Parts: sequence; C-alpha cells; structure tokens
Amino acid sequence: MSPKITTELLKQLRQVMKNPRYVQEPVQAYIVPSGDAHQSEYIAPCDCRRAFISGFDGSAGTAIVTEQHAAMWTDGRYFLQAAHQMDSNWTLMKMGLKDTPTQEDWLVSVLPEGSKVGVDPFIIPADQWKRMSKALRSAGHDLVPVKENLIDTIWTDCPQRPCKPLITLDLSYTGVSWRDKIVALRSKMAERKVMWFVVTALDEVAWLFNLRGSDVEYNPVFFAYAVIGMNTIRLFIDGDRMMDPAVREHLQLDSTLEPEFKIQVMPYGSILSELQAVGAGLSPKEKVWLSDKASYALTEAIPKAYRYLTPYTPICIAKAVKNAAETEGMRRAHIKDAVALCELFNWLEKEVPKGTVTEIVAADKAEEFRSQQKDFVELSFATISSTGPNGAIIHYKPVPETNRTLSVNEIYLLDSGAQYKDGTTDVTRTMHFGTPSAYEKECFTYVLKGHIAVSAAIFPNGTKGHLLDSFARSALWDCGLDYLHGTGHGVGSFLNVHEGPCGISYKTFADEPLEAGMIVSDEPGYYEDGSFGIRIENVVLVIPAETKYNFKNRGSLTFEPLTLVPIQTKMIDVNLLTEKECNWVNEYHRRCREVVGAELERQGRHEALRWLLRETEPLARVQ
Amino acid sequence: MSPKITTELLKQLRQVMKNPRYVQEPVQAYIVPSGDAHQSEYIAPCDCRRAFISGFDGSAGTAIVTEQHAAMWTDGRYFLQAAHQMDSNWTLMKMGLKDTPTQEDWLVSVLPEGSKVGVDPFIIPADQWKRMSKALRSAGHDLVPVKENLIDTIWTDCPQRPCKPLITLDLSYTGVSWRDKIVALRSKMAERKVMWFVVTALDEVAWLFNLRGSDVEYNPVFFAYAVIGMNTIRLFIDGDRMMDPAVREHLQLDSTLEPEFKIQVMPYGSILSELQAVGAGLSPKEKVWLSDKASYALTEAIPKAYRYLTPYTPICIAKAVKNAAETEGMRRAHIKDAVALCELFNWLEKEVPKGTVTEIVAADKAEEFRSQQKDFVELSFATISSTGPNGAIIHYKPVPETNRTLSVNEIYLLDSGAQYKDGTTDVTRTMHFGTPSAYEKECFTYVLKGHIAVSAAIFPNGTKGHLLDSFARSALWDCGLDYLHGTGHGVGSFLNVHEGPCGISYKTFADEPLEAGMIVSDEPGYYEDGSFGIRIENVVLVIPAETKYNFKNRGSLTFEPLTLVPIQTKMIDVNLLTEKECNWVNEYHRRCREVVGAELERQGRHEALRWLLRETEPLARVQ
Repeated sequence: MSPKITTELLKQLRQVMKNPRYVQEPVQAYIVPSGDAHQSEYIAPCDCRRAFISGFDGSAGTAIVTEQHAAMWTDGRYFLQAAHQMDSNWTLMKMGLKDTPTQEDWLVSVLPEGSKVGVDPFIIPADQWKRMSKALRSAGHDLVPVKENLIDTIWTDCPQRPCKPLITLDLSYTGVSWRDKIVALRSKMAERKVMWFVVTALDEVAWLFNLRGSDVEYNPVFFAYAVIGMNTIRLFIDGDRMMDPAVREHLQLDSTLEPEFKIQVMPYGSILSELQAVGAGLSPKEKVWLSDKASYALTEAIPKAYRYLTPYTPICIAKAVKNAAETEGMRRAHIKDAVALCELFNWLEKEVPKGTVTEIVAADKAEEFRSQQKDFVELSFATISSTGPNGAIIHYKPVPETNRTLSVNEIYLLDSGAQYKDGTTDVTRTMHFGTPSAYEKECFTYVLKGHIAVSAAIFPNGTKGHLLDSFARSALWDCGLDYLHGTGHGVGSFLNVHEGPCGISYKTFADEPLEAGMIVSDEPGYYEDGSFGIRIENVVLVIPAETKYNFKNRGSLTFEPLTLVPIQTKMIDVNLLTEKECNWVNEYHRRCREVVGAELERQGRHEALRWLLRETEPLARVQ
Repeated sequence: MSPKITTELLKQLRQVMKNPRYVQEPVQAYIVPSGDAHQSEYIAPCDCRRAFISGFDGSAGTAIVTEQHAAMWTDGRYFLQAAHQMDSNWTLMKMGLKDTPTQEDWLVSVLPEGSKVGVDPFIIPADQWKRMSKALRSAGHDLVPVKENLIDTIWTDCPQRPCKPLITLDLSYTGVSWRDKIVALRSKMAERKVMWFVVTALDEVAWLFNLRGSDVEYNPVFFAYAVIGMNTIRLFIDGDRMMDPAVREHLQLDSTLEPEFKIQVMPYGSILSELQAVGAGLSPKEKVWLSDKASYALTEAIPKAYRYLTPYTPICIAKAVKNAAETEGMRRAHIKDAVALCELFNWLEKEVPKGTVTEIVAADKAEEFRSQQKDFVELSFATISSTGPNGAIIHYKPVPETNRTLSVNEIYLLDSGAQYKDGTTDVTRTMHFGTPSAYEKECFTYVLKGHIAVSAAIFPNGTKGHLLDSFARSALWDCGLDYLHGTGHGVGSFLNVHEGPCGISYKTFADEPLEAGMIVSDEPGYYEDGSFGIRIENVVLVIPAETKYNFKNRGSLTFEPLTLVPIQTKMIDVNLLTEKECNWVNEYHRRCREVVGAELERQGRHEALRWLLRETEPLARVQ
C-alpha cells in the first residue's frame, strides 16, 4: 500500500481556503471531520472527504489543514494504517497517547494570532463545534461555518449521493410497528415536555419506520431525516423510492389515516429550511429535541432557548433494547453465520497448506459461504482478513498491495460479519493452520481469559458497560500486555454493526447502563506490531442472571453469547486457564455443537459438521 | 439519635429569603452546599451551615429550601444517617439511585415560573454554579448570588472562624522546600503561559508553604489563600500567627530575599478585592489559573477571557505524588498506627466479653493508643466505631444516643486514622469477638477478595484508578451483592485524609492517571441495613510492577500496602479463596509480623506482640 500523494490537493485546498467565492474571509485552518451530515460512522463514497484529501480511509479520523501543516487525528486501531496511507505532507496525531495534543491545543500552537478556522456546519456535530469553538475563542481565534464544503470544491470526480430502493420489514422481523414506535416516541416527548423531535441519525430513521436501505455500504440505511411532532410526521427523503408500492403500503401513504399518523414526505434537501420554519414558529415552552451530536447547522436552526439536547435520543435507547422478535432474529442470523464460518474454516484448513489462499481469497470465500445463507443481504463491514504482521493492523482490510498468503507458519485473524434480514453479525476468530508457538498460545490464552471474564461476568442491573472493560484486560495486564482499543460496542438488529448507547470501553463514561435485551460485542485482543494480531470476538446478549443473593432487589445481569463459532483449542494453553474458564470453553463448545451442529445437519453440510465436532472436543485441564 | 427539629429555623430562613435587607429581590429557593469558601470536605464549625439548618452532619450533602419544600441530596454512605438526623420537614434525595432527580431537575419541577434561586457565591464552586445556572436559565429561572450568607443571618450562636497557631515542617518531612515548590509551580505556569496562580484549597496552601494548622478538625490546615505571580507571592492569612518567630523564620519573612521569593502577607478577607485588582490590571494574554472548583465569587473576580480553569491544579497533582521523604514518613506513620491498633484489638479481645466496651469507649481507646505514638497530632477523621446494625451506616459516628455495646455476638467495624507529623493514616478492620456466622464469613471473604483484587492488581502506567473499581466488586457481584460507595480515595501526607486527583471509584471519570508515588485507599465493603457492616481498608502506595513483558514500553504499576494491621483470619472462609488470594493474605501477614512485630518489640509492647503473632498465623487452604 503506497501513500496517497496529496501535495497538489493540499495546494488546491489552501487556495480555496482563501478564495472569496467560498469563504467570506480567508480561513487559516480547515477541519475535515470523518462523518457525513448524519454523523454516521460508515459513510457513502461521496462523503469520504477526509479520505480524499489525505488518503487515510479508516473509519475514524479528523484532518486539519492549515497554511503550513496537515495533521490527522486517529485512534490506536488505525495508527499503522494511517501511517501507511498518508504521505509526508501529513503529521499523524496518535489519540490516546500521553503526548498527543488535542485538535484544539494543536491549532492554538500553530495558528497565527486571530485566525479563522473553517468547518462545514453540516458535518460537524453541535457538541464538537461547541467545544472547539470555545477553546479557539479563548485563545483569540474563531471557528467559522463555511457553507460550501471546501473539499467538494476541489473534488472534481466526487461520486453522486446514492439513492437506492428501500426494503420494508414486517412485524415478524421488527416486533413493533412503526405506528407503535411513533406512539412510544411521543410519550417520551410528552414526558420531557418537548413538542418536536428531530431524527438525524440514519439508523434511527430506518429503525423508526421499519425500513432499510442500501445507500451506505455495510449499513442498511438510507439518506433521510425525520421530524416528529405531537401531531405530525415529516420524512425528508429523495428519489423515486417513495413511488415503490410496497413502501407506500408499508407507510400507509395512500390510506385514510388519523392525521397524527399521516406521513408527509418532503425532499431531503429541505430539512434545514423546514426546521428553520419550525424554529421560527415556536411559542414559549415549545421545545425541540435533538441529539447533541446532530450537526451544528441543524442545531442552529432552532433558537437556543428552544433546544432540548441529549447525548442519546429516546430512539437510540429504545433501539438498543431488542424485543423478542429481534432477539430471535439475531439468534437465527448468528446460527447461519456460524454455519458459513464452519464451512470457511474447514475449507481453509484444507487449502491453506497449498499456499494458494490469500487474505483476499479467504475474505471472498467467507462472503461466498455467507451469501448462501437465507435472508443474506450484504456484509456488515469490510472483512478484516489478515495474516502474520497484517493482523497487528487492527482495522486492516486486505488490498492487492498488502495481500498476504495464508500459511501454516502464521496466525490468521478473521473479523467479519454480515447483514441478514433477521439480524447483524460480527465475529472474530484467530486461527493457526500449523503449529502455534508457545508465545502465540500464551498471548491467545490471555486474550481468551479476558473474553471469558467479560462474557461470564455477573453485574448489577444498571451497571454501565465501561465498568466491565478492565475485566477483559486483567490477564494481559498481569503480564505487562494490553490492547489499545475498547472491548465492545453495541450491535444493531439488521442495522449498524456499531451502535450506541451502550458498549464496553474504558474510553467512554457516558454510556447508558446495560439492560436485558441489549446486544454488544466482547472483543479483547493483543497485537504485536510487525508480528501478529489476536482477537476473539463474540456478539453477546444481555440477559438476567440468577444469583445467590439479591442486594437491594436490584437484580443482576450477565451475557449469553449469540455468536456460536468454535474458538480454536489448538491456540489455547490449557494450563493457563482456571477450572472455571476451562468449563466455560467446554460449555460454549457444547452449545456450538448442539445448535450449529443441528443446522449444519439440516443443511446437509456434513464435512463442515465433522469439522465442528472435532473443533469442539472438550478441553482437558492438566491439574 | 433523634432528628433536629427545624420547623422554626426553616420559617426564619424563608423569611430572610424575602427580606430586602439581605436579597435584592426575594429568592424562591436557597441552596446550602456542604463546603466552605475553599470547597473543603471537612469544615470548621462556623461553616457547618447545612448541618445547622437540617440536622444532617455527614461529610457530603446539599440542602435546598424553597417556600414549600426542604430537600437534602446525599450519597449512599449517608442514606441512613441523613434519614435519622432530619425531621419530617426534609425530603431525602438519594443520589445514585435511578429515580432520584438531580437538584436542577427537582428545582425546575417545584419552582413557580420565573423563580430566583439564591446561593452564597463564596460557597458554591464555579463549575457547579455554571451547570446549575445553565439548567435553571433554560427553564426560565435564575441563579443569583446572595452576598450575605442567609444561614449566617439566622444562626445567632454561630461560632467564630478559628485562627490557630501554625506548625512548620522541615525538609526531613517534606523533602522539598517551599521555595523549590514555588519554582516548580512557576515552571508549570510558564508552560501553560499563565501569569498568576490562585491557591484556593486549604491543603494546597498548606502543602505549598510546608506549613500545617489546626483550624479544621482532622485536617491539619489553616484558613488562607495564596496568589502566586511570576515575581510575587501573596499569602492571605489572618491573626497573629504570622508573628510566631518559627513561622517567620520558615517563610524567611525577615530575610533579604530575591524579590520573587518575598512573601507579602495580607489579611484573609482581602482576597476578593486583591484578586479583583489583579483582574483589572491584566494585559491581553495574561491569564490567571484557578481550579474550576474555586468559588464562583473568586472566579468572577477575573474577567472570563483571562481565566485559565482546570479541574486539578498543578499543586494538587504535584502534592499527590509523594517524594521519598514523604513516602518514608507515611511508612513510619503506618507502622506506629499499626502498633496502636494491635494494642487496641488485643485490649478489645479481653474487654468485649465483659460487656463494658461501647462504641465510644472503643473509639476513645483507639485514640488513646494512637496518642502514645511519636509525632501524633490528632485523628485524621471522626472514628467510625460501629457494631451490629450501626456498621451498616457507612459513615457512622457513635454518639450517646446510638452508642452500642460491643459483644461477642455482633460484627465490629472500626474505620479510623490519625495525623502524625510524618504522615496520615486511614484503616478499617472488621472483627468478630465471638463466632461469626457462615453468612458473615462468606460476605467478609467476598469483600476480602475484592480488596486483594485491587491491591494485587497489575496495570499499565497511565491507567486511571476508576478502571480498577470493578475488580473490588467482582466477587460480590458474582453473588448478587455490592456496596454503594467508591473503592478508594487519595490520601495526603500529614494532610487531608481525602485528597485528589486520583482515586478508585466508578463515580469518577476525570481522575488523574495513577503514577508511582501516589497513595490511595483500597476499601471495598458490604453492608446489610439493620444487621451489619463489613469493610476492609488499607492505604496503599502506587509502585512500579515487574512484569514478564512490557507492551509499548509503557511499564506497569501495582500497589504496596502501607497499612500493616492483621486482617482477622477468623472471619475468612478459606475455601472461598483462590490459592493466589490465600498466598496474598499470608504474605501480607508475614510483613505485618516482620515490620510491626519489630516495632512492638522495640516499644516493649509484648502482649500486643503476642496478639500480632497469633493473628498472623498463615492460612491453610483445604484443597
């Protein structure tokens, strides 16, 4: 992978930063955030502005270009990747390391006095604007909104914004109709005494209306906003997808409905002016509810006194707690996913020794097996198929320049998942197709101990997930090891593979408490730059736990693994496991056998079944 | 303990809330925070305004009085105590429970439209003012500073502000001279480009000048402020204590000094006007550094554009990392403290069966034994001497009305500590002088497992203490148990027994990373209302840890117990301990024997030595 040459682009950008056609006054710095106008993590090609200007295409990163400098902030998952993809015009700012300046501090240190810092107000979240603006102001600079996106002005071959057909989901998938979701939302609005709710996140629009799309790769969402009043529903969406009879029927667009359930369809681009009209027409005490991560542009459309901002919207919180239909769907999806992976690993085991399987071939094969499963829609993220040193690049994606051949001498890490109509999967397994070294087994076993420590944890109702993060690290810490990423993220139900408001990460404090029905990943790892990467990831469901006592009647919770793919016992140093951990592995493998075995049998996949049976033989602990 | 009758007082307060002599406009609510003008946790009698108005005298709590209501917010440590001490005029707001409203939300729910909420601007920290003011404003109310403290206007027999003599500490105790501390502070100021630093916390003033006082019980501090410029030092302090030749010599008040080390002594009460003068004379870019917890009054004295606010001051951070002289002092203090407690427990063992030892007698006896030790100054907090159900009142202090007699049938919990000239101690032991029940032993053992999990934890350099909190709870959680307080707090060196910026608590996110030399407590517990309380607390020193590997060369840390008092083995269910935990207890007891045994021998305390030897017999695990 050679870095993108950005000298010419940066020159052009620096020119438009001074061009009165685009900026009222010259800006001395321009911020290019990661997201789109919906603060999405996964974005459409037309929104990949940061990747365009810098070459770095990881999922998280913020670029800032000044007259003299170009700097990129990203986190531990992407240090290696960013360093590879960016040319020497760029300085990599490693977030999370002690000496890395914040964007604000860095700007203050490099800007000439009284500078203007520009940013697209549709792309920057309001909370970030506020923080950045305050820090700059206190140092004598100004953060200014630049209406026209300056990257777009120099991006001559920028792709069009996608506008693909929609999928409607019936009650058997969603458990709750969109009408009932609107009713529940309005009751939350009444509780907080707000009159309007603005839906800005794409997955929240999709969830609310029980619709899915394919405007953004991997995430089954579509470009839309919604504004929900106590008596009105406005959906801002483009294209002829509203002409689809199935969609019209689903949304009851042509039915005679009570007015409060009548959906008004409006052009996507009219959200700002419509919201400004809402803002202008508010009477005192009529509040408008927005996420504090909504764009600065939309937030500003509502006068400050009328805004009700929360870090998590009621939709985000409701969406996170899966109902019975969604949970059952997630279970089915994970069984199908396990079938595909049993097929894959059985195939890899035979093919790898031949020296013909590259990372890309393996990733394609994984997709092929998944696509054979019922209700498969697409992958849920770019498959991380990495062997040897590539495994240490935490969010690696194989491309021809880096594509490595799997061998019996290197560890192979596969982090992959799919969107099925009934659920979203995300699983990581780390395998060795030869004989792992004692050191590799040792590291793998520490990671496994961390995985089990979280998965088997029992904790009081109302515990925030971030309080479990250290459990995943304890065994690694004991030996002086660690990993530079969080331990888990929320997972959507046929929706985004990363979703809030819960997770398991030391980086977050403001996560919502875990409750039964929430679904998160459990994925500790260990990475050695230049050598190998290890990660063990299951998607787990929060369930009530039975405990001997019940302090203050709070009740307890624990996790049930939804992912049912064998963990390679060859990689385990059994002597490092406690009896309890050993039993956990054996019980997990027993469930894989029972549940996935039955499905392999049903699908007539006998060779994969034999592989499963062999891989799920109980561990025997030498005492 | 009968509650304080507050009907008449509340009536008087409500009158002055409308009295134009004290308020420009009537205030519909008045906030009475816990702290003093220095945001101290422990306060002088003249500052106990919240206790005066409500009767609740725990260390944390905020009272709000409106025309109709009186409400008290406090945390889990004080739920029972507050309920006992307050009469029916008061509503107890249990912080940390799901359905408890915040002060802001509650105010908004009870106030009539357009209300004014008053507070003493010297008592409310600036950060709290900001949050509260914003929330009230967005609901149409106003937070207003009321210059005269309204409690003081109705508190006819309010005691005088204390003004006791000072103690000077030489290099053998402090390790660093006050001059060198000023030099270090100025270099931190230069780094951040600030010209002035305002010292508002009493322990920070004391630490900076290597002085101690006794204006506040338990905390060896004195009422003072300091304002440090790049070339000036101003100390705001009252009374004739500056006449003391030892103090004059220590501060070199009569020596010919370089001007930048010449201390200008000014009246305590002149801080506001002096600071306003500083604020008025600032040129652009001349910043003034304050804690964001400094009072609203002092913060407002500096125009907003010139303020540099941080959650922790450079003094707070420097003070937390103990140097070799301080660490050695703390070690000595803890050995002396252990000697006193060995004497006490030996004495209790003989006396308790006679039925003559009450909680107060035991607490007094503990103080008596401590006062026999060299350099003893005073206790470091009110001794928590509690037996049976009183043990469940987390910050219980025995008073005649509640005073219970120790017996061989109930658990006894003693949480106590002292100030010695060389260090501060804080230790909790839970004992049974008869035969504990299986359930009591079970709970004790879970608490012990939590204590060990923290104490023996190995974690990377730079880890924040709050990430270790769950380790202390894991064994309790497994059985559905928990405790409603944090696990540890920073401990000063002959200073406040609670100090920032580090700690071990799930409630904090903004603690500073742990580093070698920091000293914190490790004190998990378990409490059953109406039955018993268990807590096991050691003060521990952060030290470098040796590990097998060293990821990213970050280095690892662990804890070394400074407290060396036996943990009652009679209370331990050995079968619930792992081998590692069992070894930890045995090694801990071996060190108690070795170190404290030698000191008992030296002091000729042979009976207590025999007690120590018996109590530190190794545990034998039945496999």
